[in-house]
Amino acid sequence: MDNFFSDREGEDLYYMRLALQEASKAAERQEVPVGTVIVYGNEVIGRGHNRREELQSPMAHAEILALEDASQNLGSWRLCGCTLYTTLEPCVMCVGGILQARISRLVFGCLDPKGGAVESLYRLGEDPRLNHRLAVAYGLLEVECAAVLDQFFSRLRGKKLSALSNQLSAKGGGEGLKADR
Amino acid sequence: MDNFFSDREGEDLYYMRLALQEASKAAERQEVPVGTVIVYGNEVIGRGHNRREELQSPMAHAEILALEDASQNLGSWRLCGCTLYTTLEPCVMCVGGILQARISRLVFGCLDPKGGAVESLYRLGEDPRLNHRLAVAYGLLEVECAAVLDQFFSRLRGKKLSALSNQLSAKGGGEGLKADR
Repeated sequence: MDNFFSDREGEDLYYMRLALQEASKAAERQEVPVGTVIVYGNEVIGRGHNRREELQSPMAHAEILALEDASQNLGSWRLCGCTLYTTLEPCVMCVGGILQARISRLVFGCLDPKGGAVESLYRLGEDPRLNHRLAVAYGLLEVECAAVLDQFFSRLRGKKLSALSNQLSAKGGGEGLKADR
Repeated sequence: MDNFFSDREGEDLYYMRLALQEASKAAERQEVPVGTVIVYGNEVIGRGHNRREELQSPMAHAEILALEDASQNLGSWRLCGCTLYTTLEPCVMCVGGILQARISRLVFGCLDPKGGAVESLYRLGEDPRLNHRLAVAYGLLEVECAAVLDQFFSRLRGKKLSALSNQLSAKGGGEGLKADR
Protein backbone atom coordinates (compact mmCIF):
# COMPACT_ATOMS: atom_id res chain seq x y z
CA MET A 1 0.00 0.00 0.00
CA ASP A 2 3.02 2.33 -0.19
CA ASN A 3 2.24 5.55 -2.05
CA PHE A 4 -1.36 4.40 -2.43
CA PHE A 5 -2.58 7.81 -1.31
CA SER A 6 -1.50 10.95 -3.08
CA ASP A 7 -2.27 13.07 -0.01
CA ARG A 8 -3.38 13.01 3.60
CA GLU A 9 -6.98 13.94 2.69
CA GLY A 10 -7.32 11.01 0.28
CA GLU A 11 -5.95 8.70 2.95
CA ASP A 12 -8.32 10.10 5.57
CA LEU A 13 -11.32 9.72 3.21
CA TYR A 14 -10.44 6.10 2.51
CA TYR A 15 -10.27 5.16 6.18
CA MET A 16 -13.34 7.20 7.12
CA ARG A 17 -15.30 5.20 4.52
CA LEU A 18 -14.14 2.03 6.30
CA ALA A 19 -15.37 3.53 9.59
CA LEU A 20 -18.73 4.22 7.88
CA GLN A 21 -18.87 0.56 6.80
CA GLU A 22 -18.40 -0.36 10.46
CA ALA A 23 -21.26 2.01 11.40
CA SER A 24 -23.51 0.24 8.86
CA LYS A 25 -22.80 -3.09 10.58
CA ALA A 26 -24.12 -1.58 13.82
CA ALA A 27 -27.25 -0.25 12.05
CA GLU A 28 -27.96 -3.72 10.58
CA ARG A 29 -27.95 -5.08 14.12
CA GLN A 30 -30.27 -2.34 15.47
CA GLU A 31 -27.45 -0.65 17.38
CA VAL A 32 -26.81 3.11 17.30
CA PRO A 33 -24.62 3.28 14.17
CA VAL A 34 -21.14 4.45 15.06
CA GLY A 35 -18.05 2.87 13.51
CA THR A 36 -14.31 3.10 14.10
CA VAL A 37 -11.08 1.95 12.50
CA ILE A 38 -7.52 2.35 13.80
CA VAL A 39 -4.64 2.68 11.36
CA TYR A 40 -0.90 2.20 11.85
CA GLY A 41 1.19 3.08 8.81
CA ASN A 42 -1.07 1.99 5.97
CA GLU A 43 -2.56 -0.93 7.86
CA VAL A 44 -5.92 -1.17 9.60
CA ILE A 45 -5.05 -2.76 12.94
CA GLY A 46 -8.37 -2.28 14.76
CA ARG A 47 -12.06 -2.16 13.90
CA GLY A 48 -15.18 -1.72 15.96
CA HIS A 49 -18.85 -0.82 15.76
CA ASN A 50 -21.23 -0.07 18.56
CA ARG A 51 -22.46 -3.32 20.14
CA ARG A 52 -23.80 -2.08 23.48
CA GLU A 53 -27.13 -3.88 23.28
CA GLU A 54 -25.75 -7.11 21.82
CA LEU A 55 -22.97 -7.41 24.42
CA GLN A 56 -24.92 -5.68 27.22
CA SER A 57 -21.72 -3.86 28.06
CA PRO A 58 -21.59 -0.13 28.89
CA MET A 59 -18.11 -0.03 27.35
CA ALA A 60 -19.04 -1.59 23.99
CA HIS A 61 -18.81 1.67 22.04
CA ALA A 62 -17.18 1.46 18.59
CA GLU A 63 -14.03 3.29 19.72
CA ILE A 64 -13.42 1.11 22.79
CA LEU A 65 -13.90 -2.11 20.82
CA ALA A 66 -11.53 -0.85 18.12
CA LEU A 67 -8.92 0.11 20.75
CA GLU A 68 -9.19 -3.36 22.28
CA ASP A 69 -8.88 -4.97 18.83
CA ALA A 70 -5.82 -2.88 17.94
CA SER A 71 -4.11 -3.53 21.29
CA GLN A 72 -4.61 -7.26 20.97
CA ASN A 73 -3.35 -7.22 17.37
CA LEU A 74 -0.23 -5.24 18.29
CA GLY A 75 0.25 -7.01 21.64
CA SER A 76 0.58 -3.65 23.36
CA TRP A 77 -1.63 -1.19 25.21
CA ARG A 78 0.44 1.65 23.72
CA LEU A 79 -0.90 2.70 20.34
CA CYS A 80 1.52 5.59 19.73
CA GLY A 81 1.73 6.55 16.06
CA CYS A 82 -1.79 5.30 15.31
CA THR A 83 -4.70 7.28 13.86
CA LEU A 84 -8.24 6.54 15.02
CA TYR A 85 -11.07 7.27 12.56
CA THR A 86 -14.57 7.36 13.95
CA THR A 87 -17.88 8.51 12.51
CA LEU A 88 -19.16 10.45 15.56
CA GLU A 89 -17.36 12.72 18.02
CA PRO A 90 -16.26 10.46 20.92
CA CYS A 91 -17.86 10.68 24.38
CA VAL A 92 -15.94 11.23 27.64
CA MET A 93 -15.26 7.50 28.11
CA CYS A 94 -13.99 7.02 24.57
CA VAL A 95 -11.72 10.10 24.53
CA GLY A 96 -10.39 8.83 27.86
CA GLY A 97 -9.64 5.45 26.27
CA ILE A 98 -8.02 7.12 23.25
CA LEU A 99 -5.76 9.14 25.58
CA GLN A 100 -4.95 6.09 27.71
CA ALA A 101 -3.90 4.23 24.54
CA ARG A 102 -1.65 7.16 23.47
CA ILE A 103 -3.34 7.38 20.06
CA SER A 104 -1.51 10.12 18.10
CA ARG A 105 -4.28 11.42 15.86
CA LEU A 106 -8.06 11.40 15.95
CA VAL A 107 -10.25 12.00 12.90
CA PHE A 108 -14.00 12.06 13.36
CA GLY A 109 -16.98 12.72 11.10
CA CYS A 110 -19.78 14.64 12.78
CA LEU A 111 -20.06 16.49 16.06
CA ASP A 112 -22.10 15.17 18.99
CA PRO A 113 -23.40 18.35 20.68
CA LYS A 114 -24.99 16.35 23.53
CA GLY A 115 -22.12 14.12 24.53
CA GLY A 116 -18.98 14.86 22.47
CA ALA A 117 -15.89 15.46 24.58
CA VAL A 118 -13.37 16.55 21.92
CA GLU A 119 -14.99 19.77 20.68
CA SER A 120 -18.59 20.03 21.92
CA LEU A 121 -18.75 19.69 25.73
CA TYR A 122 -15.05 19.37 26.51
CA ARG A 123 -11.79 19.63 24.60
CA LEU A 124 -10.13 16.70 26.32
CA GLY A 125 -7.64 16.09 23.52
CA GLU A 126 -5.74 19.29 24.27
CA ASP A 127 -5.67 19.52 28.06
CA PRO A 128 -2.02 20.18 29.01
CA ARG A 129 -2.64 18.70 32.48
CA LEU A 130 -3.31 15.22 31.03
CA ASN A 131 -0.35 13.03 30.15
CA HIS A 132 -1.10 12.87 26.43
CA ARG A 133 -2.36 15.20 23.73
CA LEU A 134 -4.10 14.37 20.49
CA ALA A 135 -3.97 15.87 17.03
CA VAL A 136 -7.62 16.23 15.99
CA ALA A 137 -9.38 16.69 12.63
CA TYR A 138 -13.11 16.55 12.08
CA GLY A 139 -15.86 17.19 9.56
CA LEU A 140 -14.68 14.53 7.12
CA LEU A 141 -17.73 12.86 5.44
CA GLU A 142 -19.71 14.76 8.05
CA VAL A 143 -22.99 14.58 6.07
CA GLU A 144 -22.71 10.82 5.52
CA CYS A 145 -21.74 10.17 9.15
CA ALA A 146 -24.70 12.21 10.42
CA ALA A 147 -27.10 10.69 7.86
CA VAL A 148 -26.50 7.13 9.04
CA LEU A 149 -27.46 8.25 12.56
CA ASP A 150 -30.47 10.30 11.41
CA GLN A 151 -31.82 7.36 9.39
CA PHE A 152 -31.42 5.05 12.36
CA PHE A 153 -33.26 7.35 14.76
CA SER A 154 -36.00 8.11 12.21
CA ARG A 155 -36.64 4.38 11.78
CA LEU A 156 -36.61 3.94 15.57
CA ARG A 157 -39.16 6.71 16.04
CA GLY A 158 -41.29 5.17 13.27
CA LYS A 159 -41.17 1.78 14.98
CA LYS A 160 -42.07 3.28 18.36
CA LEU A 161 -45.02 5.18 16.88
CA SER A 162 -46.18 2.05 15.08
CA ALA A 163 -45.87 -0.04 18.29
CA LEU A 164 -47.81 2.61 20.22
CA SER A 165 -50.52 2.68 17.57
CA ASN A 166 -50.78 -1.15 17.66
CA GLN A 167 -50.98 -1.04 21.46
CA LEU A 168 -53.80 1.49 21.30
CA SER A 169 -55.66 -0.58 18.66
CA ALA A 170 -55.31 -3.73 20.79
CA LYS A 171 -56.78 -1.82 23.74
CA GLY A 172 -59.61 -0.57 21.55
CA GLY A 173 -58.03 2.81 21.16
CA GLY A 174 -56.84 3.28 24.74
CA GLU A 175 -58.68 4.52 27.78
CA GLY A 176 -59.04 8.06 26.54
CA LEU A 177 -60.44 7.09 23.14
CA LYS A 178 -62.75 4.48 24.66
CA ALA A 179 -64.37 7.14 26.81
CA ASP A 180 -64.93 9.20 23.67
CA ARG A 181 -66.85 6.47 21.85
CA MET B 1 -27.00 -9.67 54.83
CA ASP B 2 -30.07 -7.57 55.72
CA ASN B 3 -29.32 -5.10 58.50
CA PHE B 4 -25.71 -6.28 58.50
CA PHE B 5 -24.55 -2.70 58.61
CA SER B 6 -25.68 -0.34 61.32
CA ASP B 7 -24.99 2.71 59.14
CA ARG B 8 -23.90 3.86 55.71
CA GLU B 9 -20.32 4.53 56.88
CA GLY B 10 -19.89 0.99 58.20
CA GLU B 11 -21.19 -0.36 54.91
CA ASP B 12 -18.87 1.90 52.92
CA LEU B 13 -15.86 0.86 55.03
CA TYR B 14 -16.63 -2.81 54.50
CA TYR B 15 -16.77 -2.49 50.72
CA MET B 16 -13.78 -0.16 50.51
CA ARG B 17 -11.74 -2.82 52.34
CA LEU B 18 -12.79 -5.27 49.61
CA ALA B 19 -11.63 -2.73 47.01
CA LEU B 20 -8.29 -2.53 48.86
CA GLN B 21 -8.03 -6.33 48.68
CA GLU B 22 -8.47 -6.02 44.92
CA ALA B 23 -5.71 -3.37 44.83
CA SER B 24 -3.39 -5.79 46.66
CA LYS B 25 -3.98 -8.40 43.95
CA ALA B 26 -2.73 -5.86 41.38
CA ALA B 27 0.36 -5.09 43.51
CA GLU B 28 1.19 -8.81 43.77
CA ARG B 29 1.21 -8.93 39.98
CA GLN B 30 3.43 -5.82 39.61
CA GLU B 31 0.54 -3.70 38.34
CA VAL B 32 -0.24 -0.20 39.65
CA PRO B 33 -2.41 -1.15 42.65
CA VAL B 34 -5.94 0.13 42.17
CA GLY B 35 -8.95 -1.98 43.11
CA THR B 36 -12.71 -1.69 42.60
CA VAL B 37 -15.89 -3.43 43.70
CA ILE B 38 -19.46 -2.74 42.60
CA VAL B 39 -22.35 -3.33 44.98
CA TYR B 40 -26.06 -3.74 44.35
CA GLY B 41 -28.18 -4.00 47.50
CA ASN B 42 -25.87 -5.88 49.83
CA GLU B 43 -24.28 -7.96 47.10
CA VAL B 44 -20.92 -7.49 45.39
CA ILE B 45 -21.75 -7.92 41.70
CA GLY B 46 -18.45 -6.77 40.16
CA ARG B 47 -14.77 -6.81 41.05
CA GLY B 48 -11.69 -5.59 39.27
CA HIS B 49 -8.05 -4.70 39.76
CA ASN B 50 -5.72 -2.99 37.38
CA ARG B 51 -4.38 -5.48 34.83
CA ARG B 52 -3.10 -3.18 32.08
CA GLU B 53 0.30 -4.82 31.71
CA GLU B 54 -0.98 -8.39 32.02
CA LEU B 55 -3.75 -7.92 29.45
CA GLN B 56 -1.87 -5.31 27.38
CA SER B 57 -5.13 -3.41 27.16
CA PRO B 58 -5.40 0.38 27.61
CA MET B 59 -8.88 -0.16 29.07
CA ALA B 60 -7.86 -2.71 31.73
CA HIS B 61 -8.20 -0.28 34.66
CA ALA B 62 -9.80 -1.67 37.83
CA GLU B 63 -13.03 0.33 37.35
CA ILE B 64 -13.58 -0.74 33.73
CA LEU B 65 -12.96 -4.43 34.54
CA ALA B 66 -15.37 -4.21 37.48
CA LEU B 67 -18.02 -2.51 35.29
CA GLU B 68 -17.65 -5.28 32.71
CA ASP B 69 -17.87 -7.94 35.43
CA ALA B 70 -21.00 -6.37 36.95
CA SER B 71 -22.72 -5.94 33.56
CA GLN B 72 -22.09 -9.55 32.64
CA ASN B 73 -23.33 -10.74 36.05
CA LEU B 74 -26.52 -8.66 35.82
CA GLY B 75 -26.95 -9.26 32.07
CA SER B 76 -27.41 -5.52 31.53
CA TRP B 77 -25.28 -2.51 30.62
CA ARG B 78 -27.45 -0.40 32.93
CA LEU B 79 -26.12 -0.48 36.50
CA CYS B 80 -28.63 1.97 38.01
CA GLY B 81 -28.87 1.65 41.78
CA CYS B 82 -25.30 0.34 42.10
CA THR B 83 -22.46 1.84 44.13
CA LEU B 84 -18.89 1.65 42.82
CA TYR B 85 -16.08 1.61 45.41
CA THR B 86 -12.59 2.28 44.13
CA THR B 87 -9.32 3.01 45.90
CA LEU B 88 -8.12 5.88 43.66
CA GLU B 89 -10.01 8.77 42.08
CA PRO B 90 -11.04 7.57 38.60
CA CYS B 91 -9.47 8.95 35.40
CA VAL B 92 -11.44 10.49 32.49
CA MET B 93 -12.00 7.10 30.82
CA CYS B 94 -13.21 5.42 34.00
CA VAL B 95 -15.58 8.25 35.03
CA GLY B 96 -16.90 8.11 31.47
CA GLY B 97 -17.52 4.37 31.85
CA ILE B 98 -19.18 4.90 35.23
CA LEU B 99 -21.52 7.50 33.69
CA GLN B 100 -22.24 5.29 30.67
CA ALA B 101 -23.20 2.45 33.05
CA ARG B 102 -25.54 4.78 35.00
CA ILE B 103 -23.84 3.91 38.31
CA SER B 104 -25.76 5.79 41.03
CA ARG B 105 -23.04 6.38 43.60
CA LEU B 106 -19.25 6.53 43.53
CA VAL B 107 -17.07 6.17 46.64
CA PHE B 108 -13.32 6.51 46.25
CA GLY B 109 -10.36 6.48 48.61
CA CYS B 110 -7.63 8.95 47.68
CA LEU B 111 -7.43 11.80 45.19
CA ASP B 112 -5.37 11.58 42.00
CA PRO B 113 -4.18 15.17 41.47
CA LYS B 114 -2.55 14.30 38.12
CA GLY B 115 -5.35 12.40 36.43
CA GLY B 116 -8.49 12.32 38.58
CA ALA B 117 -11.61 13.48 36.78
CA VAL B 118 -14.16 13.55 39.62
CA GLU B 119 -12.64 16.23 41.87
CA SER B 120 -9.05 16.99 40.81
CA LEU B 121 -8.91 17.94 37.09
CA TYR B 122 -12.61 17.77 36.23
CA ARG B 123 -15.86 17.28 38.11
CA LEU B 124 -17.42 15.01 35.52
CA GLY B 125 -19.88 13.44 37.94
CA GLU B 126 -21.88 16.63 38.27
CA ASP B 127 -21.99 18.10 34.76
CA PRO B 128 -25.68 18.91 34.07
CA ARG B 129 -25.02 18.66 30.30
CA LEU B 130 -24.24 14.95 30.53
CA ASN B 131 -27.11 12.48 30.64
CA HIS B 132 -26.31 11.12 34.08
CA ARG B 133 -25.12 12.46 37.40
CA LEU B 134 -23.33 10.68 40.20
CA ALA B 135 -23.50 10.96 43.97
CA VAL B 136 -19.85 11.08 45.08
CA ALA B 137 -18.10 10.48 48.43
CA TYR B 138 -14.35 10.29 48.93
CA GLY B 139 -11.61 10.17 51.53
CA LEU B 140 -12.69 6.82 52.95
CA LEU B 141 -9.59 4.79 54.01
CA GLU B 142 -7.68 7.50 52.19
CA VAL B 143 -4.39 6.81 54.01
CA GLU B 144 -4.54 3.06 53.30
CA CYS B 145 -5.50 3.61 49.64
CA ALA B 146 -2.62 6.06 49.14
CA ALA B 147 -0.17 3.85 51.09
CA VAL B 148 -0.65 0.86 48.78
CA LEU B 149 0.26 3.11 45.83
CA ASP B 150 3.20 4.77 47.62
CA GLN B 151 4.66 1.38 48.58
CA PHE B 152 4.32 0.15 45.00
CA PHE B 153 6.07 3.19 43.51
CA SER B 154 8.80 3.14 46.19
CA ARG B 155 9.56 -0.50 45.38
CA LEU B 156 9.53 0.33 41.65
CA ARG B 157 11.99 3.19 42.15
CA GLY B 158 14.15 0.89 44.28
CA LYS B 159 14.16 -1.77 41.56
CA LYS B 160 15.00 0.80 38.88
CA LEU B 161 17.89 2.20 40.94
CA SER B 162 19.15 -1.31 41.63
CA ALA B 163 18.90 -2.26 37.92
CA LEU B 164 20.76 0.94 36.98
CA SER B 165 23.46 0.21 39.55
CA ASN B 166 23.83 -3.36 38.23
CA GLN B 167 24.06 -2.02 34.69
CA LEU B 168 26.78 0.38 35.70
CA SER B 169 28.68 -2.38 37.55
CA ALA B 170 28.42 -4.69 34.52
CA LYS B 171 29.83 -1.90 32.36
CA GLY B 172 32.62 -1.36 34.89
CA GLY B 173 30.89 1.69 36.28
CA GLY B 174 29.66 3.14 33.00
CA GLU B 175 31.44 5.23 30.40
CA GLY B 176 31.84 8.26 32.65
CA LEU B 177 33.31 6.33 35.57
CA LYS B 178 35.62 4.33 33.28
CA ALA B 179 37.14 7.53 31.99
CA ASP B 180 37.75 8.54 35.59
CA ARG B 181 39.74 5.39 36.43
